[in-house]
Amino acid sequence: MKKDFKFEVYLVTDRDLAKGRSLDWVVEEALKGGADIVQLREKDMETAGFMEEARRIKAITDRYGKTLLINDRIDVALAVGADGVHIGQSDMPYHDARRLLGPNAIIGLSVESYAQAREANDLEVDYIAISPVYRTPTKEELTEELGLEGVRKITGISRHKAVGIGSIKAYNAGDVINAGADGVAVVSGICSAEDPQAAARELKQKVEEAKGK
Amino acid sequence: MKKDFKFEVYLVTDRDLAKGRSLDWVVEEALKGGADIVQLREKDMETAGFMEEARRIKAITDRYGKTLLINDRIDVALAVGADGVHIGQSDMPYHDARRLLGPNAIIGLSVESYAQAREANDLEVDYIAISPVYRTPTKEELTEELGLEGVRKITGISRHKAVGIGSIKAYNAGDVINAGADGVAVVSGICSAEDPQAAARELKQKVEEAKGK
Repeated sequence: MKKDFKFEVYLVTDRDLAKGRSLDWVVEEALKGGADIVQLREKDMETAGFMEEARRIKAITDRYGKTLLINDRIDVALAVGADGVHIGQSDMPYHDARRLLGPNAIIGLSVESYAQAREANDLEVDYIAISPVYRTPTKEELTEELGLEGVRKITGISRHKAVGIGSIKAYNAGDVINAGADGVAVVSGICSAEDPQAAARELKQKVEEAKGK
Repeated sequence: MKKDFKFEVYLVTDRDLAKGRSLDWVVEEALKGGADIVQLREKDMETAGFMEEARRIKAITDRYGKTLLINDRIDVALAVGADGVHIGQSDMPYHDARRLLGPNAIIGLSVESYAQAREANDLEVDYIAISPVYRTPTKEELTEELGLEGVRKITGISRHKAVGIGSIKAYNAGDVINAGADGVAVVSGICSAEDPQAAARELKQKVEEAKGK
Protein backbone atom coordinates (compact mmCIF):
# COMPACT_ATOMS: atom_id res chain seq x y z
CA MET A 1 0.00 0.00 0.00
CA LYS A 2 1.21 3.44 -0.80
CA LYS A 3 2.64 5.35 2.10
CA ASP A 4 0.34 8.22 3.12
CA PHE A 5 3.07 10.79 3.15
CA LYS A 6 2.99 14.11 4.89
CA PHE A 7 3.94 17.06 2.88
CA GLU A 8 4.04 20.39 4.68
CA VAL A 9 7.79 20.93 4.91
CA TYR A 10 9.72 19.15 2.22
CA LEU A 11 13.52 19.22 2.34
CA VAL A 12 15.46 19.00 -0.92
CA THR A 13 19.11 18.34 -0.19
CA ASP A 14 22.06 20.18 -1.65
CA ARG A 15 25.45 19.33 -0.19
CA ASP A 16 27.05 22.34 -1.81
CA LEU A 17 24.77 24.63 0.18
CA ALA A 18 25.38 22.93 3.53
CA LYS A 19 28.33 25.17 4.42
CA GLY A 20 30.69 22.29 5.06
CA ARG A 21 28.39 20.53 7.49
CA SER A 22 27.50 16.90 6.78
CA LEU A 23 24.31 16.24 4.89
CA ASP A 24 23.43 13.60 7.47
CA TRP A 25 23.48 16.24 10.19
CA VAL A 26 21.45 18.74 8.15
CA VAL A 27 18.82 16.10 7.38
CA GLU A 28 18.53 14.96 10.96
CA GLU A 29 18.25 18.52 12.25
CA ALA A 30 15.55 19.25 9.66
CA LEU A 31 13.60 16.17 10.74
CA LYS A 32 13.91 17.14 14.39
CA GLY A 33 12.49 20.53 13.44
CA GLY A 34 9.49 18.95 11.74
CA ALA A 35 10.38 18.38 8.08
CA ASP A 36 8.03 15.68 6.75
CA ILE A 37 9.81 14.45 3.70
CA VAL A 38 13.34 14.42 2.28
CA GLN A 39 14.32 14.42 -1.36
CA LEU A 40 17.93 13.36 -1.73
CA ARG A 41 19.40 15.10 -4.73
CA GLU A 42 22.88 14.54 -6.13
CA LYS A 43 23.74 15.76 -9.57
CA ASP A 44 27.44 15.02 -9.93
CA MET A 45 28.17 12.17 -7.56
CA GLU A 46 29.22 8.77 -8.82
CA THR A 47 26.67 6.03 -8.27
CA ALA A 48 28.58 4.09 -5.61
CA GLY A 49 28.92 7.19 -3.45
CA PHE A 50 25.31 8.18 -4.03
CA MET A 51 24.19 4.71 -2.93
CA GLU A 52 26.20 4.91 0.26
CA GLU A 53 24.82 8.34 1.03
CA ALA A 54 21.27 7.23 0.24
CA ARG A 55 21.57 4.28 2.63
CA ARG A 56 22.85 6.55 5.39
CA ILE A 57 20.08 9.09 4.84
CA LYS A 58 17.47 6.33 4.70
CA ALA A 59 18.61 5.07 8.11
CA ILE A 60 17.89 8.58 9.41
CA THR A 61 14.49 9.06 7.74
CA ASP A 62 13.49 5.56 8.90
CA ARG A 63 14.44 6.39 12.46
CA TYR A 64 12.17 9.44 12.36
CA GLY A 65 9.41 7.63 10.45
CA LYS A 66 9.72 10.10 7.56
CA THR A 67 9.54 9.72 3.81
CA LEU A 68 12.64 9.48 1.59
CA LEU A 69 12.56 10.23 -2.13
CA ILE A 70 15.51 10.05 -4.51
CA ASN A 71 15.96 12.65 -7.21
CA ASP A 72 15.98 11.21 -10.74
CA ARG A 73 17.83 7.95 -10.09
CA ILE A 74 15.23 5.19 -10.18
CA ASP A 75 17.97 2.58 -9.81
CA VAL A 76 19.29 4.13 -6.61
CA ALA A 77 15.73 4.38 -5.22
CA LEU A 78 15.11 0.70 -5.99
CA ALA A 79 18.45 -0.44 -4.62
CA VAL A 80 18.18 1.34 -1.28
CA GLY A 81 14.42 0.84 -0.84
CA ALA A 82 13.45 4.51 -0.79
CA ASP A 83 9.77 5.42 -0.69
CA GLY A 84 9.94 6.82 -4.20
CA VAL A 85 11.47 9.33 -6.53
CA HIS A 86 11.19 12.88 -7.66
CA ILE A 87 11.54 13.42 -11.39
CA GLY A 88 11.94 16.60 -13.40
CA GLN A 89 10.91 17.21 -16.98
CA SER A 90 14.35 16.06 -18.23
CA ASP A 91 14.51 12.94 -16.08
CA MET A 92 13.09 9.51 -16.82
CA PRO A 93 9.56 9.88 -18.24
CA TYR A 94 6.79 9.18 -15.72
CA HIS A 95 5.43 6.02 -17.35
CA ASP A 96 8.85 4.36 -17.44
CA ALA A 97 9.52 5.34 -13.85
CA ARG A 98 6.15 3.95 -12.70
CA ARG A 99 6.73 0.69 -14.56
CA LEU A 100 10.08 0.19 -12.84
CA LEU A 101 8.97 1.32 -9.37
CA GLY A 102 5.52 -0.24 -9.18
CA PRO A 103 2.18 1.17 -8.05
CA ASN A 104 3.12 1.74 -4.42
CA ALA A 105 6.08 4.03 -4.95
CA ILE A 106 5.67 7.76 -4.52
CA ILE A 107 6.47 9.62 -7.73
CA GLY A 108 6.59 13.40 -7.74
CA LEU A 109 7.02 15.55 -10.82
CA SER A 110 8.35 19.08 -11.27
CA VAL A 111 6.10 21.34 -13.32
CA GLU A 112 7.50 24.60 -14.59
CA SER A 113 4.45 25.88 -16.45
CA TYR A 114 0.68 25.79 -16.59
CA ALA A 115 0.93 23.52 -19.67
CA GLN A 116 3.07 20.99 -17.79
CA ALA A 117 0.61 21.05 -14.89
CA ARG A 118 -2.21 20.16 -17.31
CA GLU A 119 -0.13 17.32 -18.76
CA ALA A 120 0.51 16.05 -15.24
CA ASN A 121 -3.25 15.67 -14.76
CA ASP A 122 -3.04 12.72 -17.18
CA LEU A 123 -0.39 11.01 -15.04
CA GLU A 124 -0.79 9.10 -11.79
CA VAL A 125 1.90 11.16 -10.09
CA ASP A 126 1.55 11.49 -6.34
CA TYR A 127 2.29 15.19 -6.25
CA ILE A 128 3.63 18.01 -8.35
CA ALA A 129 6.35 20.48 -7.41
CA ILE A 130 5.63 23.94 -8.78
CA SER A 131 9.02 25.34 -9.77
CA PRO A 132 10.23 27.98 -9.31
CA VAL A 133 7.79 29.99 -7.24
CA TYR A 134 10.44 32.65 -6.76
CA ARG A 135 13.67 33.15 -8.63
CA THR A 136 16.29 30.89 -7.16
CA PRO A 137 20.07 30.81 -7.06
CA THR A 138 20.05 26.98 -7.15
CA LYS A 139 18.44 26.88 -10.61
CA GLU A 140 20.13 29.68 -12.46
CA GLU A 141 19.10 28.46 -15.88
CA LEU A 142 15.44 29.17 -15.13
CA THR A 143 14.77 32.84 -15.52
CA GLU A 144 11.00 32.97 -15.28
CA GLU A 145 9.54 32.72 -11.81
CA LEU A 146 5.95 31.55 -11.56
CA GLY A 147 5.15 33.71 -8.56
CA LEU A 148 2.12 33.40 -6.33
CA GLU A 149 -0.12 33.97 -9.34
CA GLY A 150 1.46 30.92 -11.00
CA VAL A 151 0.87 28.86 -7.86
CA ARG A 152 -2.76 29.97 -7.83
CA LYS A 153 -3.32 29.14 -11.50
CA ILE A 154 -1.57 25.77 -11.34
CA THR A 155 -3.16 24.57 -8.10
CA GLY A 156 -6.48 25.78 -9.50
CA ILE A 157 -6.36 23.27 -12.36
CA SER A 158 -4.18 20.48 -10.91
CA ARG A 159 -5.81 17.35 -9.50
CA HIS A 160 -2.61 16.54 -7.59
CA LYS A 161 -1.18 17.58 -4.27
CA ALA A 162 1.27 20.41 -4.86
CA VAL A 163 4.35 21.74 -3.21
CA GLY A 164 5.95 25.06 -4.14
CA ILE A 165 9.72 25.30 -4.56
CA GLY A 166 12.11 28.18 -5.23
CA SER A 167 13.50 30.63 -2.66
CA ILE A 168 10.85 29.84 -0.09
CA LYS A 169 11.71 30.89 3.45
CA ALA A 170 9.71 31.33 6.63
CA TYR A 171 8.67 34.89 5.72
CA ASN A 172 6.96 33.87 2.44
CA ALA A 173 5.95 30.25 3.16
CA GLY A 174 2.47 31.28 4.31
CA ASP A 175 1.88 33.15 1.04
CA VAL A 176 2.66 30.01 -0.97
CA ILE A 177 0.19 27.99 1.09
CA ASN A 178 -2.44 30.70 0.82
CA ALA A 179 -1.96 30.62 -2.96
CA GLY A 180 -3.03 26.98 -2.95
CA ALA A 181 0.05 24.82 -2.30
CA ASP A 182 -0.18 21.97 0.20
CA GLY A 183 3.41 22.37 1.32
CA VAL A 184 6.71 24.11 0.74
CA ALA A 185 9.84 22.52 -0.62
CA VAL A 186 13.02 24.12 0.61
CA VAL A 187 16.65 23.81 -0.41
CA SER A 188 18.85 26.66 0.83
CA GLY A 189 16.27 27.76 3.41
CA ILE A 190 17.19 24.67 5.40
CA CYS A 191 20.52 23.45 3.98
CA SER A 192 22.21 26.83 4.38
CA ALA A 193 20.42 27.91 7.56
CA GLU A 194 22.66 28.53 10.54
CA ASP A 195 20.26 26.35 12.52
CA PRO A 196 18.50 23.92 10.13
CA GLN A 197 16.33 22.55 12.94
CA ALA A 198 15.03 26.01 13.85
CA ALA A 199 14.54 26.83 10.16
CA ALA A 200 12.44 23.69 9.62
CA ARG A 201 10.44 24.41 12.77
CA GLU A 202 9.69 27.97 11.72
CA LEU A 203 8.66 26.84 8.23
CA LYS A 204 6.38 24.20 9.71
CA GLN A 205 4.78 26.78 11.99
CA LYS A 206 4.18 29.21 9.11
CA VAL A 207 2.63 26.49 6.96
CA GLU A 208 0.35 25.35 9.76
CA GLU A 209 -0.66 28.91 10.58
CA ALA A 210 -1.56 29.52 6.94
CA LYS A 211 -3.60 26.32 6.94
CA GLY A 212 -5.40 27.49 10.07
CA LYS A 213 -4.13 24.61 12.18
CA MET B 1 18.27 -17.63 -20.33
CA LYS B 2 21.31 -15.49 -20.54
CA LYS B 3 22.25 -14.31 -23.97
CA ASP B 4 25.41 -16.03 -25.22
CA PHE B 5 27.12 -12.85 -26.26
CA LYS B 6 29.99 -12.51 -28.66
CA PHE B 7 32.85 -10.49 -27.52
CA GLU B 8 35.67 -10.02 -29.99
CA VAL B 9 35.13 -6.38 -30.95
CA TYR B 10 33.36 -4.38 -28.28
CA LEU B 11 32.38 -0.78 -29.06
CA VAL B 12 32.19 1.70 -26.19
CA THR B 13 30.44 4.85 -27.36
CA ASP B 14 31.64 8.39 -26.85
CA ARG B 15 29.65 11.08 -28.62
CA ASP B 16 32.34 13.66 -27.99
CA LEU B 17 34.80 11.61 -30.02
CA ALA B 18 32.46 11.07 -32.97
CA LYS B 19 33.64 14.19 -34.81
CA GLY B 20 30.15 15.62 -35.17
CA ARG B 21 28.71 12.49 -36.75
CA SER B 22 25.63 10.96 -35.13
CA LEU B 23 26.19 8.19 -32.64
CA ASP B 24 23.49 6.18 -34.39
CA TRP B 25 25.53 6.27 -37.60
CA VAL B 26 28.78 5.37 -35.85
CA VAL B 27 27.13 2.42 -34.09
CA GLU B 28 25.51 1.09 -37.24
CA GLU B 29 28.75 1.38 -39.21
CA ALA B 30 30.62 -0.45 -36.44
CA LEU B 31 28.06 -3.25 -36.48
CA LYS B 32 28.28 -3.52 -40.26
CA GLY B 33 32.03 -3.85 -39.84
CA GLY B 34 31.63 -6.70 -37.36
CA ALA B 35 31.46 -5.20 -33.87
CA ASP B 36 29.78 -7.77 -31.62
CA ILE B 37 28.64 -5.71 -28.69
CA VAL B 38 27.89 -2.07 -27.92
CA GLN B 39 28.23 -0.36 -24.58
CA LEU B 40 26.29 2.90 -24.58
CA ARG B 41 28.07 5.34 -22.32
CA GLU B 42 26.82 8.82 -21.44
CA LYS B 43 28.33 10.66 -18.54
CA ASP B 44 26.67 14.07 -18.63
CA MET B 45 23.36 13.58 -20.42
CA GLU B 46 20.06 14.06 -18.64
CA THR B 47 18.08 10.88 -18.15
CA ALA B 48 15.29 11.66 -20.60
CA GLY B 49 17.78 12.25 -23.41
CA PHE B 50 19.80 9.18 -22.47
CA MET B 51 16.62 7.05 -22.57
CA GLU B 52 15.71 8.32 -26.05
CA GLU B 53 19.22 7.65 -27.29
CA ALA B 54 19.27 4.20 -25.69
CA ARG B 55 15.99 3.28 -27.41
CA ARG B 56 17.33 4.43 -30.77
CA ILE B 57 20.58 2.50 -30.33
CA LYS B 58 18.71 -0.59 -29.16
CA ALA B 59 16.63 -0.54 -32.35
CA ILE B 60 19.93 -0.66 -34.26
CA THR B 61 21.58 -3.41 -32.19
CA ASP B 62 18.35 -5.44 -32.36
CA ARG B 63 18.28 -5.11 -36.14
CA TYR B 64 21.80 -6.53 -36.33
CA GLY B 65 21.17 -9.15 -33.64
CA LYS B 66 23.90 -7.65 -31.46
CA THR B 67 24.23 -7.09 -27.72
CA LEU B 68 23.53 -3.74 -26.06
CA LEU B 69 24.88 -2.84 -22.64
CA ILE B 70 24.29 0.43 -20.78
CA ASN B 71 27.09 2.04 -18.82
CA ASP B 72 26.33 2.49 -15.11
CA ARG B 73 22.62 3.36 -15.33
CA ILE B 74 20.72 0.26 -14.23
CA ASP B 75 17.43 2.17 -14.48
CA VAL B 76 18.02 3.08 -18.11
CA ALA B 77 18.99 -0.52 -18.90
CA LEU B 78 15.81 -1.81 -17.26
CA ALA B 79 13.58 0.79 -18.89
CA VAL B 80 14.80 0.22 -22.44
CA GLY B 81 15.25 -3.54 -22.12
CA ALA B 82 18.99 -3.61 -22.80
CA ASP B 83 20.84 -6.92 -22.49
CA GLY B 84 22.71 -5.68 -19.45
CA VAL B 85 25.06 -3.11 -18.02
CA HIS B 86 28.69 -2.31 -17.66
CA ILE B 87 29.74 -1.05 -14.25
CA GLY B 88 32.95 0.52 -13.07
CA GLN B 89 34.44 0.45 -9.61
CA SER B 90 32.60 3.71 -8.71
CA ASP B 91 29.24 2.67 -10.13
CA MET B 92 26.51 0.68 -8.41
CA PRO B 93 28.05 -2.27 -6.56
CA TYR B 94 27.73 -5.61 -8.36
CA HIS B 95 25.38 -7.28 -5.89
CA ASP B 96 22.89 -4.40 -6.00
CA ALA B 97 23.03 -4.32 -9.79
CA ARG B 98 22.45 -8.08 -10.03
CA ARG B 99 19.52 -7.90 -7.62
CA LEU B 100 17.83 -5.22 -9.72
CA LEU B 101 18.62 -6.75 -13.12
CA GLY B 102 18.06 -10.43 -12.39
CA PRO B 103 20.11 -13.52 -13.22
CA ASN B 104 19.81 -13.26 -17.01
CA ALA B 105 21.24 -9.81 -17.48
CA ILE B 106 24.81 -9.42 -18.65
CA ILE B 107 26.90 -7.53 -16.10
CA GLY B 108 30.44 -6.54 -16.93
CA LEU B 109 32.87 -4.95 -14.51
CA SER B 110 35.93 -2.77 -15.07
CA VAL B 111 39.03 -3.93 -13.23
CA GLU B 112 41.96 -1.58 -12.96
CA SER B 113 44.32 -3.75 -10.96
CA TYR B 114 45.27 -7.31 -10.17
CA ALA B 115 43.57 -6.95 -6.76
CA GLN B 116 40.28 -5.91 -8.35
CA ALA B 117 40.53 -8.86 -10.74
CA ARG B 118 40.87 -11.21 -7.77
CA GLU B 119 37.86 -9.61 -6.08
CA ALA B 120 35.87 -10.06 -9.29
CA ASN B 121 36.46 -13.81 -9.05
CA ASP B 122 34.03 -13.78 -6.12
CA LEU B 123 31.32 -12.12 -8.23
CA GLU B 124 29.06 -13.66 -10.87
CA VAL B 125 30.00 -11.00 -13.40
CA ASP B 126 29.78 -12.06 -17.04
CA TYR B 127 33.06 -10.50 -18.05
CA ILE B 128 35.73 -8.13 -16.85
CA ALA B 129 37.17 -5.18 -18.77
CA ILE B 130 40.87 -4.75 -18.08
CA SER B 131 41.42 -1.01 -17.99
CA PRO B 132 43.51 0.65 -19.22
CA VAL B 133 45.74 -1.63 -21.25
CA TYR B 134 47.46 1.39 -22.74
CA ARG B 135 47.37 4.98 -21.57
CA THR B 136 44.24 6.62 -22.92
CA PRO B 137 43.12 10.17 -23.59
CA THR B 138 39.52 9.26 -22.65
CA LYS B 139 40.45 8.44 -19.05
CA GLU B 140 42.94 11.12 -18.15
CA GLU B 141 42.63 10.56 -14.42
CA LEU B 142 44.17 7.11 -14.71
CA THR B 143 47.88 7.43 -15.06
CA GLU B 144 49.04 3.85 -14.72
CA GLU B 145 48.62 1.66 -17.73
CA LEU B 146 48.45 -2.08 -17.12
CA GLY B 147 50.19 -2.97 -20.34
CA LEU B 148 50.37 -6.40 -21.93
CA GLU B 149 52.03 -7.73 -18.80
CA GLY B 150 48.98 -6.60 -16.79
CA VAL B 151 46.65 -8.31 -19.26
CA ARG B 152 48.69 -11.50 -18.94
CA LYS B 153 48.68 -11.42 -15.14
CA ILE B 154 44.99 -10.60 -14.85
CA THR B 155 43.74 -13.10 -17.43
CA GLY B 156 46.03 -15.65 -15.79
CA ILE B 157 44.09 -15.52 -12.52
CA SER B 158 40.61 -14.40 -13.65
CA ARG B 159 37.86 -16.99 -14.05
CA HIS B 160 35.89 -14.55 -16.25
CA LYS B 161 35.94 -13.68 -19.91
CA ALA B 162 38.04 -10.56 -20.35
CA VAL B 163 38.20 -7.68 -22.76
CA GLY B 164 41.04 -5.19 -22.82
CA ILE B 165 40.33 -1.48 -23.11
CA GLY B 166 42.50 1.61 -23.50
CA SER B 167 44.01 2.95 -26.73
CA ILE B 168 43.56 -0.31 -28.60
CA LYS B 169 43.74 -0.02 -32.38
CA ALA B 170 44.16 -2.49 -35.20
CA TYR B 171 47.95 -2.44 -34.92
CA ASN B 172 48.01 -3.58 -31.27
CA ALA B 173 44.74 -5.56 -31.00
CA GLY B 174 46.47 -8.86 -31.75
CA ASP B 175 48.96 -8.28 -28.92
CA VAL B 176 46.11 -7.84 -26.43
CA ILE B 177 44.52 -11.11 -27.57
CA ASN B 178 47.86 -12.90 -27.46
CA ALA B 179 48.29 -11.64 -23.88
CA GLY B 180 45.11 -13.50 -22.91
CA ALA B 181 42.12 -11.23 -23.59
CA ASP B 182 39.06 -12.67 -25.33
CA GLY B 183 38.28 -9.41 -27.08
CA VAL B 184 39.15 -5.76 -27.46
CA ALA B 185 37.00 -2.85 -26.31
CA VAL B 186 37.45 0.26 -28.38
CA VAL B 187 36.33 3.85 -27.93
CA SER B 188 38.23 6.34 -30.12
CA GLY B 189 39.55 3.60 -32.41
CA ILE B 190 36.02 3.31 -33.81
CA CYS B 191 34.19 6.49 -32.72
CA SER B 192 36.87 8.79 -34.12
CA ALA B 193 37.85 6.67 -37.11
CA GLU B 194 37.33 8.29 -40.49
CA ASP B 195 35.57 5.06 -41.52
CA PRO B 196 34.17 3.33 -38.40
CA GLN B 197 32.99 0.36 -40.45
CA ALA B 198 36.45 -0.26 -41.87
CA ALA B 199 37.98 0.27 -38.41
CA ALA B 200 35.68 -2.35 -36.86
CA ARG B 201 36.36 -4.75 -39.71
CA GLU B 202 40.11 -4.40 -39.35
CA LEU B 203 39.92 -4.87 -35.57
CA LYS B 204 37.80 -7.99 -36.06
CA GLN B 205 40.29 -9.38 -38.53
CA LYS B 206 43.24 -8.76 -36.20
CA VAL B 207 41.44 -10.39 -33.28
CA GLU B 208 40.52 -13.43 -35.35
CA GLU B 209 44.04 -13.73 -36.75
CA ALA B 210 45.46 -13.66 -33.23
CA LYS B 211 43.00 -16.34 -32.20
CA GLY B 212 44.10 -18.43 -35.19
CA LYS B 213 40.65 -18.37 -36.79
